[in-house]
Amino acid sequence: MSTTALSNRQVRLAKRPEGLATRDNWQFTTEPVSEPGDGGVLVQTLSLSLDPAMRGWMNEGKSYIAPVEIGAVMRAGGIGRVAASRNPAFAVGDMVFGTLGVQQYASVAKEEIARSGLAKIDLAAGTIGQWLNVLGMPGMTAYFGLMDVGEPKPGDTVVVSGAAGAVGQTVGQLARIKGCRVVGIAGGQAKCDWVVQELGFDACIDYKAGPSAVREGLKAHCPKGVDVYFDNVGGEILDTVLAKLARGARIVICGAISQYNNTTPVQGPKNYLSLLVNRARMQGMVVFDYADRYHVAIAELSGYLRDGRMKSREDVVEGLDTFPEALTRLFTGANFGKLVLKVAD
Amino acid sequence: MSTTALSNRQVRLAKRPEGLATRDNWQFTTEPVSEPGDGGVLVQTLSLSLDPAMRGWMNEGKSYIAPVEIGAVMRAGGIGRVAASRNPAFAVGDMVFGTLGVQQYASVAKEEIARSGLAKIDLAAGTIGQWLNVLGMPGMTAYFGLMDVGEPKPGDTVVVSGAAGAVGQTVGQLARIKGCRVVGIAGGQAKCDWVVQELGFDACIDYKAGPSAVREGLKAHCPKGVDVYFDNVGGEILDTVLAKLARGARIVICGAISQYNNTTPVQGPKNYLSLLVNRARMQGMVVFDYADRYHVAIAELSGYLRDGRMKSREDVVEGLDTFPEALTRLFTGANFGKLVLKVAD
Repeated sequence: MSTTALSNRQVRLAKRPEGLATRDNWQFTTEPVSEPGDGGVLVQTLSLSLDPAMRGWMNEGKSYIAPVEIGAVMRAGGIGRVAASRNPAFAVGDMVFGTLGVQQYASVAKEEIARSGLAKIDLAAGTIGQWLNVLGMPGMTAYFGLMDVGEPKPGDTVVVSGAAGAVGQTVGQLARIKGCRVVGIAGGQAKCDWVVQELGFDACIDYKAGPSAVREGLKAHCPKGVDVYFDNVGGEILDTVLAKLARGARIVICGAISQYNNTTPVQGPKNYLSLLVNRARMQGMVVFDYADRYHVAIAELSGYLRDGRMKSREDVVEGLDTFPEALTRLFTGANFGKLVLKVAD
Repeated sequence: MSTTALSNRQVRLAKRPEGLATRDNWQFTTEPVSEPGDGGVLVQTLSLSLDPAMRGWMNEGKSYIAPVEIGAVMRAGGIGRVAASRNPAFAVGDMVFGTLGVQQYASVAKEEIARSGLAKIDLAAGTIGQWLNVLGMPGMTAYFGLMDVGEPKPGDTVVVSGAAGAVGQTVGQLARIKGCRVVGIAGGQAKCDWVVQELGFDACIDYKAGPSAVREGLKAHCPKGVDVYFDNVGGEILDTVLAKLARGARIVICGAISQYNNTTPVQGPKNYLSLLVNRARMQGMVVFDYADRYHVAIAELSGYLRDGRMKSREDVVEGLDTFPEALTRLFTGANFGKLVLKVAD
């Protein structure tokens, strides 16, 4: 196939947001697609992963990864199909995962292949949605955050916030499979019902049910305290869980979605001295550190998907042009399941 | 010796303080000393340990240890001399450590001996002051907090707050002995000079030198970031150190002296997401958990005292009646070294 006649629609960062990003923060561009150079690969984007971490990448300043520069195509992981290849490791038609960016075509030069994490995927192990969810970054985050940092033991009480979200759904199901008692925290009755009835959590607390819903819920569902808390949200919920820790508890700091759009300083956990009283720890994790063991997690998790012990739910939004509003859904809690932007069939 | 003619002066908690305790919070009582019952021991208090944790024991509510009840003799660890004994494990004249309370004589019943941690000490291993400092609870806290929770490696940069205090002085010297680069944080030039010139810290930051002294000091003295932070103070200093963590850093939460007299909520560390970015952890510890290994730490630390690799400094205040004002010195930073209340020779 000749690719030179194709055009590449792109979403670029126009200016850094204060608070929630709006359409003004983005610029839409269209460029011709160029043939890959020697050793390079051209990938057609099929579906992109929309993640809370993207909000952090839009900020200036040092973090675990460089910020997206003004004018650059927005960073995003996704699944695509190889459209042209001058690299013997990739053939036209191969399905691949990688940091494709918010654009219709990603031309990945030879020297960028490793950095963009470009790798073939097997659709026999999971659907495209599952490869962006349980078998993708959210699933890897859940697996290594829970197993390596949370260190759950059978019988432990594991609490996870953002329980119906991409990371939370896998954390909870994996903890259940490992023999833990699992309590989710999610926004709204529909998400809570799904988490309990479909995913088999022992309980789920609707944090939107009232100002003391989380405190009362933890009291009811965690009578022996919380052994592992997998925190995706930060803020008040983190503080409330800190007040209910069991001796020797482990808190996994995976994210703090409640704080990402702050225009005021981040809310520090004022109950952090519960760590002292309970000899507990709070530890941060970044999924990329576990890249050399992704294959282990994928093998285990795809087994659970196959035998039905684990389910996954994706919330698919269609069309590259809807990206600005789609991303916002993460921060308002409008998404129900792993948020995916479908760019092409 | 007949002990029935002796009187026992005591300091009791009269009411719970809000903020800093004053003389109004205490009640002085005098009781006759009674002979110990079968299996019991009567101990004459010689010196008491005054510690920041005592402020926490004065509050109502659940913590790692029960609060001191209103009207009860204030809890305190100390060194004493056995004045009468009906227990074969203790002879009159033996020097002992234990939870004696703020009083001239502690009558320890048979069933309370274990709970009060009553144990003979050997003055060949250290002076009474050292047994309340390096070889006592502060030293044990420093040893297990640093070694078990901080896990320092040779070449690591270790930062300790309250560096001239009881715990801090041993943390820093032990870290130096273990091959780390050690940076203290203390209040005032005199303490900083002592820590560097006498204890051999690589540097010490005077947090009272100006509003950005800690930030600038860490920048100057920790060019590769902070690998281990041993936190005795909490508050702004914890937040400032969080912003300078190295990848994989360990924060030992030992105390938060800056927050103990708060009448407003504890200040949560708003930079806690640095734990995520740096894959770092923050972990609390309580020294009592290590009681079965105190002998290991005492053997090692007394060796360092003997061969001169470790020094200790006690700040001795005399007289049981000065207790209320002496305790306050901890929170104003007026003490220089481990604060000891000398009750008798």
